[in-house]
Amino acid sequence: SFPPGVLTLCRQVPAWGTAARQPPSLPLTPCRAFSNNRIQVELDESSGVATMKFKSPPVNSLSLDFLTEFCISLEKLENDRACRGVIFTSAVPKIFSSGLDITEMCGKSTEHYSEFWRAVQEMWLRVYGSNMVTVAAINGSSPAGGCLVALSCDYRIMVNNPKFSIGLNEAQLGIVAPFWFKDTFVNTVGHRVAECSLQLGSLHPAPKAHELGLVDELVPEEKLQEKAVAVMAQWLALPDHARQLTKSMMRKAVLDRLVANREEDVQNFVNFVSKESIQKSLRMYMEMLKKKKS
Amino acid sequence: SFPPGVLTLCRQVPAWGTAARQPPSLPLTPCRAFSNNRIQVELDESSGVATMKFKSPPVNSLSLDFLTEFCISLEKLENDRACRGVIFTSAVPKIFSSGLDITEMCGKSTEHYSEFWRAVQEMWLRVYGSNMVTVAAINGSSPAGGCLVALSCDYRIMVNNPKFSIGLNEAQLGIVAPFWFKDTFVNTVGHRVAECSLQLGSLHPAPKAHELGLVDELVPEEKLQEKAVAVMAQWLALPDHARQLTKSMMRKAVLDRLVANREEDVQNFVNFVSKESIQKSLRMYMEMLKKKKS
Amino acid sequence: SFPPGVLTLCRQVPAWGTAARQPPSLPLTPCRAFSNNRIQVELDESSGVATMKFKSPPVNSLSLDFLTEFCISLEKLENDRACRGVIFTSAVPKIFSSGLDITEMCGKSTEHYSEFWRAVQEMWLRVYGSNMVTVAAINGSSPAGGCLVALSCDYRIMVNNPKFSIGLNEAQLGIVAPFWFKDTFVNTVGHRVAECSLQLGSLHPAPKAHELGLVDELVPEEKLQEKAVAVMAQWLALPDHARQLTKSMMRKAVLDRLVANREEDVQNFVNFVSKESIQKSLRMYMEMLKKKKS
Repeated sequence: SFPPGVLTLCRQVPAWGTAARQPPSLPLTPCRAFSNNRIQVELDESSGVATMKFKSPPVNSLSLDFLTEFCISLEKLENDRACRGVIFTSAVPKIFSSGLDITEMCGKSTEHYSEFWRAVQEMWLRVYGSNMVTVAAINGSSPAGGCLVALSCDYRIMVNNPKFSIGLNEAQLGIVAPFWFKDTFVNTVGHRVAECSLQLGSLHPAPKAHELGLVDELVPEEKLQEKAVAVMAQWLALPDHARQLTKSMMRKAVLDRLVANREEDVQNFVNFVSKESIQKSLRMYMEMLKKKKS
Repeated sequence: SFPPGVLTLCRQVPAWGTAARQPPSLPLTPCRAFSNNRIQVELDESSGVATMKFKSPPVNSLSLDFLTEFCISLEKLENDRACRGVIFTSAVPKIFSSGLDITEMCGKSTEHYSEFWRAVQEMWLRVYGSNMVTVAAINGSSPAGGCLVALSCDYRIMVNNPKFSIGLNEAQLGIVAPFWFKDTFVNTVGHRVAECSLQLGSLHPAPKAHELGLVDELVPEEKLQEKAVAVMAQWLALPDHARQLTKSMMRKAVLDRLVANREEDVQNFVNFVSKESIQKSLRMYMEMLKKKKS
Repeated sequence: SFPPGVLTLCRQVPAWGTAARQPPSLPLTPCRAFSNNRIQVELDESSGVATMKFKSPPVNSLSLDFLTEFCISLEKLENDRACRGVIFTSAVPKIFSSGLDITEMCGKSTEHYSEFWRAVQEMWLRVYGSNMVTVAAINGSSPAGGCLVALSCDYRIMVNNPKFSIGLNEAQLGIVAPFWFKDTFVNTVGHRVAECSLQLGSLHPAPKAHELGLVDELVPEEKLQEKAVAVMAQWLALPDHARQLTKSMMRKAVLDRLVANREEDVQNFVNFVSKESIQKSLRMYMEMLKKKKS
């Protein structure tokens, strides 16, 4: 039931990981509910809506293991005809996802950096290009890579709590968001808001994020699940085929840009993160986080 | 008095229709007022402003005949030095235009589909690329192709009635707006609003349409004509030459994209609409419309 | 301390002027304060923030001499490691800058037009592509080229006085803003506001300019300097390297477009401005300005 154009797009996306690290071959029987270590997945067969709940305390950081599990789970749902939409949310209080796991970018081998970055790319390609309706139910803060997950969905609902913030704050850490983070951001909030927010590394409190168009709707925390289900129902009321082709038309240019430059982008990341000045920045940032905790 | 750049652009646009269906050669005497079957045209010589009033009941649908008449009338005005601006409005109560005539897309030959689609392209190329100032005075609902006509103008004024709605709702019918509908929409409301509205096939009530930037102004029905004339006067206060070159600079990239891919776009439409699944969707939609009426 | 990517970008920008008109070689000792004829420059070493104050009465018009001095001063600051940000403001009451000096475009030789236009390009390339944080403290009206200077900064603060207006009003003079003025405008306010404002040659009063996103903030006149310093401090709190790379990522496409078409753009300007019809328009406009004054 997937339209040929969109399938072609997805097939252009190289299979996950490297030859040495293939995901396990997928079961042919449709999934109904499964839980691995870091993400709990439930599929409501009556509505065709799955929920992927991040439960990787303390902050749902996007480690290589998390990303691997994320991509495998999402691919299972993508290939399951009973599933038409997926809601992303968090099982960890106050945090949606803290973004890329900095420990994966610090003091590791260049091979490790490459593998990690390919997993980040894969995650984005799969969410931004998903044939399913994707809704982010953002029940906590969502900086950097966490914000990217939300931006890659079709719709963003955030808990109306000014203590929860969201944004691409890479510049605060002395690093630079890659061009496809930027492209996704510009497609959502426009060039000017993106330019300003990216340079300042802004983390916007929920109300400001809503005002800027970074999230589509604010709700009280106790209404979040209900609202996500209602929004999903509204999107699923449309015929899949037309909706998927329309989504592909809107997002294809930006997806294709990474697909065409994927290895170059890996190389850029590896070169950048391998610099001693960047390693130093990241170590300082981790020290600061540790001090904050204690 | 047309600037070379813009004229060149217009000449790149193939002449209307196929070799077998040329529009009648245009009169050299300037038109003042003429009415054919479906559109009433009046030119106020003192102001240089023409009004094209759609009077093709019940819903001003864009049939092949309507589009042919539309393009011939617009070309007459374009070539008339006494005419510098045109206001599009409807003579049919409660509806501006219902968009593409679905009967032209249902149960016809591929030749017919091709001819019809070229006429739709031609209409858009002529309005979006017009050297005249174009104002849409939207006095009723304006879905799909009707919305495209409005989006292609320089300025949109809509009657402030929440019962009147406007939008590119193709996805609701199981079909997909072509890329140049999308490009025109994105140029007007930005990427995010376009992405969301196109996937949901949203028809926005007038107040929401104004909020989103889909229309520029809302007025009470009895003030619509007056406001359209006032806006037109404001635009005509500028020197034509500079305004036309500026308009071309803003719209050329999007116009050129269709001009460069016109036949491919026809072929895509014909292939898509010829599919049995699409024919079925359209028949069901027409059945639904008939039931609504009775 | 400049990142390689951004430096490369800057080096792609041809050196100022023609071979025959090189800027004086720059002093190796860092500048602290210098004043030439038309722009007063002060560098606060403790904060690393310079102020460039336009003092070229009556209206700070961008003459060839003004632009030359502007580019030399800016380059000095760009190469001074003690300087990380620059605030542009005016020493002339009620006017930020009136834009391009029309006397440079009227009754001169084609060589003069070429030289003048290269200086306009150079100014924009240097400001829009600056590695420093650039803040416009707009304490007066800012039409046409004056608006471009402001648009090219990272942040715009304007005095909240509805008598002060800002915009790219070239169409009002019968001329057309070049594509890179347009690109800069679109990057700031989006396609639709740019399309409408450019065709109408709109000069927006400060409150409207703020509403449209053309300026980022409004303040009472007596708070302008204080606010500019505070905003600058906020931007300078970020690590230079990450901020500069991010800025380059956002602006490179538009900068590269002019760099790749620089000579063609000069030729277009010279051809356009040499037309008798355009010369006549400009003469009429200057007559009108003279009458206004007396």
